[in-house]
Amino acid sequence: MSDTSTINRTGRTSNREIRRAARSHRAAGKLPYIRRRIPTVELLNDEAVEIIETNAETILEEIGIEFRRDLESLRLWRRQVPTCRGERVRIPRGLAASCCARHHASSCCTRETRRAACVSAATPRFSPVGGPPFVTDLDGGRRYGTLADLHNFIKLAHVAPAIHFSGGCMVEPMDVPEGKRHLDVQYAFFRYSDQGCEGTPETPGHAADAVRMAGILFGQDFIQANCVLLGNINSNSPLTLDGRMLGALRAFASQNQGTIVVPAVLAVAMGPVTPAGCMAELLAETMAGMALTQLVRPGAPVIMGSFVGAISMRTGAPTFGTAEATQMIFATAQLARRLGVPCRSGGSLCSSKVADAQAAYESAHTLLPTLLAGVNLVTHAAGWLEGGLVAGYEKFVMDIDQLAMMQALANGMDVSPRGQAMDAIREVGPGGHFLGCAHTQENFEAAFHQSTIADYSSYEQWSSEGSLNAEQRANVVWKRMLADYEDPGLDPAIDEALSQCMCERRAVLSDSLDEE
Amino acid sequence: MSDTSTINRTGRTSNREIRRAARSHRAAGKLPYIRRRIPTVELLNDEAVEIIETNAETILEEIGIEFRRDLESLRLWRRQVPTCRGERVRIPRGLAASCCARHHASSCCTRETRRAACVSAATPRFSPVGGPPFVTDLDGGRRYGTLADLHNFIKLAHVAPAIHFSGGCMVEPMDVPEGKRHLDVQYAFFRYSDQGCEGTPETPGHAADAVRMAGILFGQDFIQANCVLLGNINSNSPLTLDGRMLGALRAFASQNQGTIVVPAVLAVAMGPVTPAGCMAELLAETMAGMALTQLVRPGAPVIMGSFVGAISMRTGAPTFGTAEATQMIFATAQLARRLGVPCRSGGSLCSSKVADAQAAYESAHTLLPTLLAGVNLVTHAAGWLEGGLVAGYEKFVMDIDQLAMMQALANGMDVSPRGQAMDAIREVGPGGHFLGCAHTQENFEAAFHQSTIADYSSYEQWSSEGSLNAEQRANVVWKRMLADYEDPGLDPAIDEALSQCMCERRAVLSDSLDEE
Repeated sequence: MSDTSTINRTGRTSNREIRRAARSHRAAGKLPYIRRRIPTVELLNDEAVEIIETNAETILEEIGIEFRRDLESLRLWRRQVPTCRGERVRIPRGLAASCCARHHASSCCTRETRRAACVSAATPRFSPVGGPPFVTDLDGGRRYGTLADLHNFIKLAHVAPAIHFSGGCMVEPMDVPEGKRHLDVQYAFFRYSDQGCEGTPETPGHAADAVRMAGILFGQDFIQANCVLLGNINSNSPLTLDGRMLGALRAFASQNQGTIVVPAVLAVAMGPVTPAGCMAELLAETMAGMALTQLVRPGAPVIMGSFVGAISMRTGAPTFGTAEATQMIFATAQLARRLGVPCRSGGSLCSSKVADAQAAYESAHTLLPTLLAGVNLVTHAAGWLEGGLVAGYEKFVMDIDQLAMMQALANGMDVSPRGQAMDAIREVGPGGHFLGCAHTQENFEAAFHQSTIADYSSYEQWSSEGSLNAEQRANVVWKRMLADYEDPGLDPAIDEALSQCMCERRAVLSDSLDEE
Repeated sequence: MSDTSTINRTGRTSNREIRRAARSHRAAGKLPYIRRRIPTVELLNDEAVEIIETNAETILEEIGIEFRRDLESLRLWRRQVPTCRGERVRIPRGLAASCCARHHASSCCTRETRRAACVSAATPRFSPVGGPPFVTDLDGGRRYGTLADLHNFIKLAHVAPAIHFSGGCMVEPMDVPEGKRHLDVQYAFFRYSDQGCEGTPETPGHAADAVRMAGILFGQDFIQANCVLLGNINSNSPLTLDGRMLGALRAFASQNQGTIVVPAVLAVAMGPVTPAGCMAELLAETMAGMALTQLVRPGAPVIMGSFVGAISMRTGAPTFGTAEATQMIFATAQLARRLGVPCRSGGSLCSSKVADAQAAYESAHTLLPTLLAGVNLVTHAAGWLEGGLVAGYEKFVMDIDQLAMMQALANGMDVSPRGQAMDAIREVGPGGHFLGCAHTQENFEAAFHQSTIADYSSYEQWSSEGSLNAEQRANVVWKRMLADYEDPGLDPAIDEALSQCMCERRAVLSDSLDEE
């Protein structure tokens, strides 16, 4: 599946190197790009979906969305809605949806293949956790993340069999000044993996720097014609987009790069206490943001985002993996399909502090609905702990095991003659055993997904080996994965040009984000 | 939902007592019977399902099923298939399915309501783990189960909010002689809960004793007209039913009691290495067994069973919660619906020795597909560990938390005006917060499922309270549940009659099962 491209560019990267990178993927046990051969699950009936859509349009038209501290966004909206005043834009029924319809397919090219391989309507793509300031592992415990941790997680995602998109900043490098950090983050993604990735989205300047660096990596002409970065733009729910995010959105969209417009609606806090209410609010926000990308540049790639959960009434902390969150993930994918845009949602979300049963229950009850619902880009799919505050090394290993299982599930049931196995059933007959039969011997390696962390030994064997739980076993695995990591390589000329660019930018940027 | 019945019987149990029992349920936080308001998920397409059905019929017709050491079963089959010789019955295409069509609805009456409340085509019912010889908890560790443990688990299932069917022997009371144990088991179900339950199925004699005791509890006339027990009959896969199970099947069916015909097909051992092959074999076996119940007594209640997983090629141990097992659970429910019978499958199955992340991932990846697929009777839904060898107290607590979440999921998304929450969205407006708004205050208690074991406190709070993981927190919960248990009561005259029956049976039974 990871076919090497024959497209050549400025001579900076040879086909040989590209092929080498593809080989290194295979050598590390990388699975082919996931293909969906099972149907999407529609949990809501048409009436329910139409109610949510109608309410979203009512919210847009009657209440409107605040576009705060970004005159350019307001200027673009006033061309469409001349009557609007101040920062509140009341969007007439149907206008946002018709704007969204202008977008082009939101695939994202990878450096490896220079082909649009990530995120299309028919295929799910998994990417790791993004955003945590803390990391944890069984050796070092919970602590602030560093650039070295970020490098580790990028390498782990590069090696992980079922992760085909590196995502966004898996852990904030707290040892780098906030105002310049994005340069090291973006460089790390380009340097240590050739998978697709996000662009740093924290400010308009960060987004512009990400696009600038992508231009060096891929070539300026290439990125004007192809999406190579996805920018994750969070709205400030309820019903608000702020200036920083709006500027970043414009920076990506104006350069033909992809935008994921993600309302983070946690019921009880940023949304109503009921899922149908949250979904209408969420749909209104993401439609408004996606519509704006099309006003910036018609055809710019865009993805509908949805980050959902609820606030615990006892503690105020976010909760995940609940029945209501599950319903909202299914609803997100249905709404996106009807709107004709790909969607980002779900993941392996949890509230637990440690990679225990709570973490696993919550993650599984987020991930499986995400796959069944037909979500296209599954961010936060590996390593997420403590409501997103912590990137967990052991949790990462557990999650990628589940992602490979999701890939096997998405493959669907093989009903070819090989899958039907009628010869085996005839051969073994009543009362027999299938272990020794020819069909089993020929097919067992390909037929079943083999878990990397599950223990299937006897109780006695398991006890004699120290009675390790899953978290303890996972501790061994991520170290082995880092040891197995093979550098995909980066053209020295590109590497130098990126360093030069970073030097120039560091010289003009302040350490603090607030001073930008 | 748990409405009290006005049907009176022989005067043994007054309506007042029945109402008291119903009240005690409510007092303990019991949820109403679960109702499904979400669609069933069809993961396989029609072509795939038809291939499996065709292959099952081919297996029945060409290979046949062995009905071993039970002359009466063979006599019944020879009336349908005069040409069959020996113990192998080759069942002509279509015959088994047409026999299955004769069954009546497989609801099972509960003592509490004397109404058919468990297991119908439209509603899922959860019941606890059945069969383990071992128990484990954090205080006492892994050890052989006792009658006291069984009593505990029956009480826990009685209290558990989302469990409405007590199921089968949650833990083998290894401190009671094997040949007489079934009497204590059946009595314990009748004595400590008024929920529906299974009948002891290990031998024809055990099954007959279960029916005899149920006759004392419900009245002989009542059980001839109503199903009050479900007998779990395992086939000896591949393609074999043995004398003990066949005799027990006949004992239940002949007395109008329900039979669950459950092939336990673990791929690589009792079935082919491919899911489609396993499903054809499984369908052939369960159809043959279900057809036999209708030859014994046309109209006898019957349920299609399916216990699926795979054998680890490394250790030979059963594996659960894998992609292939998920596919087979979805396939089971689809096949049962097409055959017109309710089905039993899935649960909270896992291979893990402890209630860690492995246990939770595997259980969640069994349970959620079970609910979405539309399985009717979900056995092994709480407490299962180590491939079914161990009933775990803490695992039980974790699982019932998930069952309540599944019930909330099955309720579907509320799209009533209350669920739409448009007034709340208008009230709060852009940039506001929903915590204080009227809609939140009015609805938060009913709107979200509250987990009993998830921790949502801050890292600092959680650390100061001892950094307990989910398993450790669950240890507190099952003790509180046992303390909260309220005895539903049993009419003293019935209690004495049951004791008398058990005395008489003990006098004639030997201690060993083999000597029966």
